[in-house]
Amino acid sequence: MVATLKFTTLLLAVVVCRATQDYGYKDVEEPTLGDSQYGSLWPLPQKVQISTVAFKLSGVSFQIVDAKESSSGASCSLLQNAYRRYDEYIFPISRMQGQNKKKAFASVSELQVWITSADSECDSYPSVTSDESYELSVDSPVAVLKAPKVWGALRGLETFSQLVYEDEYGAKSINRTEIQDFPRFTHRGLLLDSSRHFLPIKVILANLEAMAWNKFNVFHWHIVDDPSFPYMSRTFPQLSQQGAYHPYTHVYTPSDVKMIIEFARLRGIRVVSEFDTPGHTQSWGKGQKDLLTPCYSGASPSGSFGPVNPILNTTYDFMAMFFKEVSTVFPDAYIHLGGDEVDFSCWKSNPDIQKFMVQQGFGTDYSKLESFYIQRLLDIVTTTNKGYMIWQEVIDNGVKLKSNTVVHVWMGNKFEEELQKVTEAGFTTILSAPWYLDYISYGQDWQKYYKVEPLSFNGTDAQKKLVVGGEACLWGEYVDATNLTPRLWPRASAVGERLWSDKDVKDTNDAYSRLIQHRCRMVQRGIPAEPLFTGYCAHEYKGV
Amino acid sequence: MVATLKFTTLLLAVVVCRATQDYGYKDVEEPTLGDSQYGSLWPLPQKVQISTVAFKLSGVSFQIVDAKESSSGASCSLLQNAYRRYDEYIFPISRMQGQNKKKAFASVSELQVWITSADSECDSYPSVTSDESYELSVDSPVAVLKAPKVWGALRGLETFSQLVYEDEYGAKSINRTEIQDFPRFTHRGLLLDSSRHFLPIKVILANLEAMAWNKFNVFHWHIVDDPSFPYMSRTFPQLSQQGAYHPYTHVYTPSDVKMIIEFARLRGIRVVSEFDTPGHTQSWGKGQKDLLTPCYSGASPSGSFGPVNPILNTTYDFMAMFFKEVSTVFPDAYIHLGGDEVDFSCWKSNPDIQKFMVQQGFGTDYSKLESFYIQRLLDIVTTTNKGYMIWQEVIDNGVKLKSNTVVHVWMGNKFEEELQKVTEAGFTTILSAPWYLDYISYGQDWQKYYKVEPLSFNGTDAQKKLVVGGEACLWGEYVDATNLTPRLWPRASAVGERLWSDKDVKDTNDAYSRLIQHRCRMVQRGIPAEPLFTGYCAHEYKGV
Repeated sequence: MVATLKFTTLLLAVVVCRATQDYGYKDVEEPTLGDSQYGSLWPLPQKVQISTVAFKLSGVSFQIVDAKESSSGASCSLLQNAYRRYDEYIFPISRMQGQNKKKAFASVSELQVWITSADSECDSYPSVTSDESYELSVDSPVAVLKAPKVWGALRGLETFSQLVYEDEYGAKSINRTEIQDFPRFTHRGLLLDSSRHFLPIKVILANLEAMAWNKFNVFHWHIVDDPSFPYMSRTFPQLSQQGAYHPYTHVYTPSDVKMIIEFARLRGIRVVSEFDTPGHTQSWGKGQKDLLTPCYSGASPSGSFGPVNPILNTTYDFMAMFFKEVSTVFPDAYIHLGGDEVDFSCWKSNPDIQKFMVQQGFGTDYSKLESFYIQRLLDIVTTTNKGYMIWQEVIDNGVKLKSNTVVHVWMGNKFEEELQKVTEAGFTTILSAPWYLDYISYGQDWQKYYKVEPLSFNGTDAQKKLVVGGEACLWGEYVDATNLTPRLWPRASAVGERLWSDKDVKDTNDAYSRLIQHRCRMVQRGIPAEPLFTGYCAHEYKGV
Repeated sequence: MVATLKFTTLLLAVVVCRATQDYGYKDVEEPTLGDSQYGSLWPLPQKVQISTVAFKLSGVSFQIVDAKESSSGASCSLLQNAYRRYDEYIFPISRMQGQNKKKAFASVSELQVWITSADSECDSYPSVTSDESYELSVDSPVAVLKAPKVWGALRGLETFSQLVYEDEYGAKSINRTEIQDFPRFTHRGLLLDSSRHFLPIKVILANLEAMAWNKFNVFHWHIVDDPSFPYMSRTFPQLSQQGAYHPYTHVYTPSDVKMIIEFARLRGIRVVSEFDTPGHTQSWGKGQKDLLTPCYSGASPSGSFGPVNPILNTTYDFMAMFFKEVSTVFPDAYIHLGGDEVDFSCWKSNPDIQKFMVQQGFGTDYSKLESFYIQRLLDIVTTTNKGYMIWQEVIDNGVKLKSNTVVHVWMGNKFEEELQKVTEAGFTTILSAPWYLDYISYGQDWQKYYKVEPLSFNGTDAQKKLVVGGEACLWGEYVDATNLTPRLWPRASAVGERLWSDKDVKDTNDAYSRLIQHRCRMVQRGIPAEPLFTGYCAHEYKGV
């Protein structure tokens, strides 16, 4: 007998009412609540057909297994780890022991995972060209997840777990479903800043986990900045010894970094490290003598320091050694080199710099000096065979860039003009300007992030293809382990769907209904994702 | 030998730098960091003298004990509980075992707690007239905390614990200190809303704990509202059975309520419950037939309901029984009766109400009908021998009130005018308007809360005396267990100091320096209080 059940999500039921205890503040646009035909799927796959025919998943016998035809077998620990993880998400309470009884109803007894291409990439690192596509077919008695590579399998496992719900008796159920899915954008990132506040490993790992649930695939690790230098360098250990908030409680050791990269890899997430220069480097100066420019007050040094000193050969010797190390520690093909917000006042005050400006014929145009520095830095990084990402100022200032440079657009509200300009110049681009999640405000700001259309700028099809994605940024001034996670989720989820799903997926009501359930699912999986609005989750967060 | 040490707080050392990754947003006013001469004291006591002479506290032998002269002895569990609590705050790692060795330095071996009045009030509930004053004298070998009542002793214990710091070798130290202290305002409250989101007991208890650290003394429990009715009534169990988000996972049983009240009492905190009527009662209607007004669409009922139906005798019978129960469940002398934001449109649509309006000669002035209801409700509550608090609309609408009514001012930005008006009419008043902490914004908004002067309105001295305090409000639309605690602390701490300390305590730089350390102390005690700005705590939050 095939039970025909309404596609409900009782487990995650939510009541929403309009509360009125607000005054004078501009009204929040309130999406109306209605059950989505897509249940709790987030981000929405490219093609979804969910039938009303429901099957049960047996807590005794259901298994995720390698398909016989799969190019990837039991030796692929990435997949075996993923099977265990998703098994626990689907059956959070310990699995029942016992005989597999004769079933009186149709069920899904297996999810077969079938890697279809000869090279599964099981032991590789994900990259910007990784194939994340998959096809999922849920039927009785077997569901099949086909993907060319393990990356697509990871995405499909998450989708499968999102299709499972509890019927009114608590039985795990899933409807007959067909899904073909792939990401709209290949770069779907999240920036965390471990310099303004140190983020304990536990916090980073938890958020990588949540990223995978939202199909993000790039962790942009803004690891050092002015306030602190928590990256422990083997070549220059004094950088963190002197520059971190504390020399061993507030640093990332090489082992920590390795663990984070592997944890991310197992979830199909790239780790792109950012070592921002020549500005944002105050903490570097503490452990590396003569690296920063001495500022002058009149004729004598003031005792304070400015950006990296661009006129000394020692600076470039240091950078060459430092980035050689970085290029081996971080396996990703890209390094983010920063290059934003360089303050010229200290350079202007320094007589040696002034002399150098004259020698080079730069006049008083200090952006030429900045370009001089960046150009040499890029040459250095090029020798490491890495590509680089840079903040938009670098191109705004006219630095010559390799054609495979990724320009990161972050400034102001006119990001469309910048996208037009950067892509016109032929550069690959990622967008963050509308997604600075550190700027909090009252109400449902996820909608603002959700409504952004990254390709709304004027440009040719070729230009639009150069926009490979975007990143949600949570800068660290006001967040640390105490509040980062609830402040990030589910607000970042809005960016996650925008970057994964089809551009026509923009029904805010439907998104609201799915996102409420998705956030309760994140809470149930142990992440304190904050509420969208008045309501409840069947299983509230257990912490404080 | 008496060691003379610099008054440092290495334990809570914090580095702050100016970060610049913001654009276009209005600049945050940044207090400069400087060590306060008052260390990490928060809120600042009325009179403090801290000498540079430092003593050690032995992890083997230090004890908090009843003074021989104290009217309160070993049988006072409130104090014994407090001693244990503060012992653990001061020595968070397990106490060392061993012989008390001969000391080579001056130390404080005891804190003697001396309740000076004959009735310590150990077994009472705190009230609006409770004496919270205390005197603390720290010297070697004995520190003495004198207070007329246990309430002052609790405040003094917190202050004592805030004076303890670690010297550079990790030894617990305290400087010779003299403090005389008492609160500026007697009502220092925090409103939490358990209707828009259910708040698990654990969350409420954790925040009561944090309230005590900030010398708050009123938990205003906005327990029910439109979205849900989590209060389990013995008399009308169907109210929560039908009106809660879930009939037993999302309710407060009588045992839960009792536990919360006792937990609060042990910390000198009153629990003032709010049962808001006649508006904000949608959830009441689910379990109590005919309580709410049926709205009409033309000539027939629309199926939806408005405020409490004020024209039926059954309404008042219900309210009499309900508030009789509430008055016994909550021992506090006051009940908050709400009375805010009554929407007249449903009343207007109902033909029975229209008829009643004519009979009563109210014309079309529905505020007269509201007053009619409130008046009868107040009469009912008066028979329970409770005082009542009401939101400002009740007085704005001209309802006659008992002279001991407390008016709660919450609307808009012109709170000074309302305070002037309400106190002119002779009513006791508390202020919340500038302290709606649910309205979040980017940056250091604690300063905005801190700078409020509650007595800045035009009025006589007699009028100003009627302002007995204020409450920070964290309405529940956007907070639940996942994000409430970090969003509340240390923002509410700013209100805590404003209500406790002298009106001349308003140096934002000094406050910033103390508050940074106070927040790190809250984190170390297990509460995820969020950061004020870039920097770090020696002991970061261990959760996610």
